Amino acid sequence: MTRYDPEIGYDVPARVGDPVAAVMTPALVVDLDAFERNAARLRDFAAEKGVRLRPHAKTHKSADIALYQMAEGGACGICCQKLSEAEALVRAGVTDILISNQICGAARADRIARLAGQARIGVCVDDPAGVAELAEAVARHGTSLNVLVEVDVGCLRCGVAPGEPAVELARLVDAAQGLTFGGIQAYQGALQHIADPADRRAAAETAARLTRDTIDALAAAGFACETVGGAGTGSFRMDTDLGQVNELQCGSYIFMDADYDRIREEDGDRPGGMENALFVLSGIMSQPVPGRAVCDAGLKALSVDSGLPRIDADGLTYKGASDEHGVILDPEGKLSRGDQVWLVPGHCDPTCNLHDWYVGVRNGVVETLWPVTARGKLY
Amino acid sequence: MTRYDPEIGYDVPARVGDPVAAVMTPALVVDLDAFERNAARLRDFAAEKGVRLRPHAKTHKSADIALYQMAEGGACGICCQKLSEAEALVRAGVTDILISNQICGAARADRIARLAGQARIGVCVDDPAGVAELAEAVARHGTSLNVLVEVDVGCLRCGVAPGEPAVELARLVDAAQGLTFGGIQAYQGALQHIADPADRRAAAETAARLTRDTIDALAAAGFACETVGGAGTGSFRMDTDLGQVNELQCGSYIFMDADYDRIREEDGDRPGGMENALFVLSGIMSQPVPGRAVCDAGLKALSVDSGLPRIDADGLTYKGASDEHGVILDPEGKLSRGDQVWLVPGHCDPTCNLHDWYVGVRNGVVETLWPVTARGKLY
Repeated sequence: MTRYDPEIGYDVPARVGDPVAAVMTPALVVDLDAFERNAARLRDFAAEKGVRLRPHAKTHKSADIALYQMAEGGACGICCQKLSEAEALVRAGVTDILISNQICGAARADRIARLAGQARIGVCVDDPAGVAELAEAVARHGTSLNVLVEVDVGCLRCGVAPGEPAVELARLVDAAQGLTFGGIQAYQGALQHIADPADRRAAAETAARLTRDTIDALAAAGFACETVGGAGTGSFRMDTDLGQVNELQCGSYIFMDADYDRIREEDGDRPGGMENALFVLSGIMSQPVPGRAVCDAGLKALSVDSGLPRIDADGLTYKGASDEHGVILDPEGKLSRGDQVWLVPGHCDPTCNLHDWYVGVRNGVVETLWPVTARGKLY
Repeated sequence: MTRYDPEIGYDVPARVGDPVAAVMTPALVVDLDAFERNAARLRDFAAEKGVRLRPHAKTHKSADIALYQMAEGGACGICCQKLSEAEALVRAGVTDILISNQICGAARADRIARLAGQARIGVCVDDPAGVAELAEAVARHGTSLNVLVEVDVGCLRCGVAPGEPAVELARLVDAAQGLTFGGIQAYQGALQHIADPADRRAAAETAARLTRDTIDALAAAGFACETVGGAGTGSFRMDTDLGQVNELQCGSYIFMDADYDRIREEDGDRPGGMENALFVLSGIMSQPVPGRAVCDAGLKALSVDSGLPRIDADGLTYKGASDEHGVILDPEGKLSRGDQVWLVPGHCDPTCNLHDWYVGVRNGVVETLWPVTARGKLY
């Protein structure tokens, strides 16, 4: 009856073969059919358009999913956002990772240089000091790194300005033994969540123009960009049409979330035709008065930074989250204590990072359990 | 130079004796002096007023902190909010836990009944079916549970209505072998975050009146409430003045957070005179243009459900969080790549639940590391 095994010392939320009704809630559940269809959609899109695909593992932080994306999903490798995330995935067997972010400080440079002895590792830079730290570390370890210069094409976060500043940094990378200039990182993250397709296209066009200017400036200085990385779930079709990015870094596509419900392609379809594959399965723990039910998934089971979860059933509204409770409005009295509800989280990435396990479900039965390999890997 | 030990297989963000500058960011840092002063403040308050103190471990999820609160902080035991949280803390040596929440379903009932063989365990009920599940399980395991009837005194979440409904449930508990009616749970969680002290007092008065009515109804039926549990960090002084609650369940007091900056006692002081003891220490990873710095703590390092973090330094504003980045406005150009900033998270409880370790700091040096024992324990 219990899944806690004192001999092992840890919990699992379900066992393979369990019916969904036996899953201990709240649990992070993957609809495996929808998940596989999403993976195939982006694989087929990239193949048709002739661009590489390097999905972002910051969404799922799972070695099993990363390896699936590489084996079945058309991925040439994966992206991570943090060094310790990449370390965890390399330890679990992932062989090709771009850290699509800056690595700051001598301690991290030492770690990434060592990691580069175990897998093919790329990283971004946007500062001469970062280049110097990486160069010193790879020289000490006798390893090499593929380095992309991050360019700010409208995200207003990290990255050098487009054009000449990128060329200056490319020269520093190129001059450093053990560092290979691999191209540019041109991700416009703010794009993904612009609801209006016309506004989103305008931002994508700006990003593409700034990317083109930078590619041209680098070419004039003798630097070819093998990789132009960028694009996310909300913009990969537009970005591919615009023709600058050659390696897609979509992350959320594999799961989707309630915030992406707002985002539509120009034809009214969901981004890339993707469907929701991720749920927080939650149990009704109290039904104190008619019209109100209380579920066991609150702020520690789902992230509300991009809004409250949507309930995958008519007539029910998730009204408010406290640390360990969710209050559900149920005017028609559909829910009883002990029932389960399927919540579509507002934002998939930080929600996955709250959980230790994915419960993979097909036809109402638990088919697999995947650990959230890099959960909490923050450095 | 590195803290990742391939032989051990896990990371720690620092080592004891490190200077703060060597802590790997982002990290959850406890100012040990402030932490100890907060613990002493509530201990002394409870002793002076003659009420028991059972701090809420849902805030910190740490066995080390729970044991400190019991050894040095005047606590008679601790509260948990989830069964698996309590299991984790019992395994780590905590001997007296009230799960201040409902436990739903036969699987959980089985687990709590077994746990009751290892420590003194209490739990709340608000439904006859829950009482029956617990009774069946303790009979099977030959253990006993202390049971509080949860009463809704204004929280509009779980709990039976005040008065007669509580008496009915107390009768069921009392009739069940292995279950001891221990009193009522009368926590008004919505109270804690009412900014205006007069409005907060009005809500506390309502809660106290409904609590009194229930105590009286129970007494008329022959049931004494050994425990009347409730009160939180924002209201414990008022609740104690009002004289109904006899066991304080404050959690946040030990750390405080940026949202509690808004909350003042009637004398203008911070709640109970508590001070901030919890930080997310974050590193500046990029400083792409004058006036903007980017730090390495985003949505996966701090919870923004109650607002963005405050920076513990003048002239700096944490402007926006993405998954792994925080954008800081720095109009005076104070920050450089590689600097550290001390962020006061908007909401302490869900922020602690994101991290694997507390880094305890005193006089600029790492003095201790505490695991977040029950991190992610969601059932």
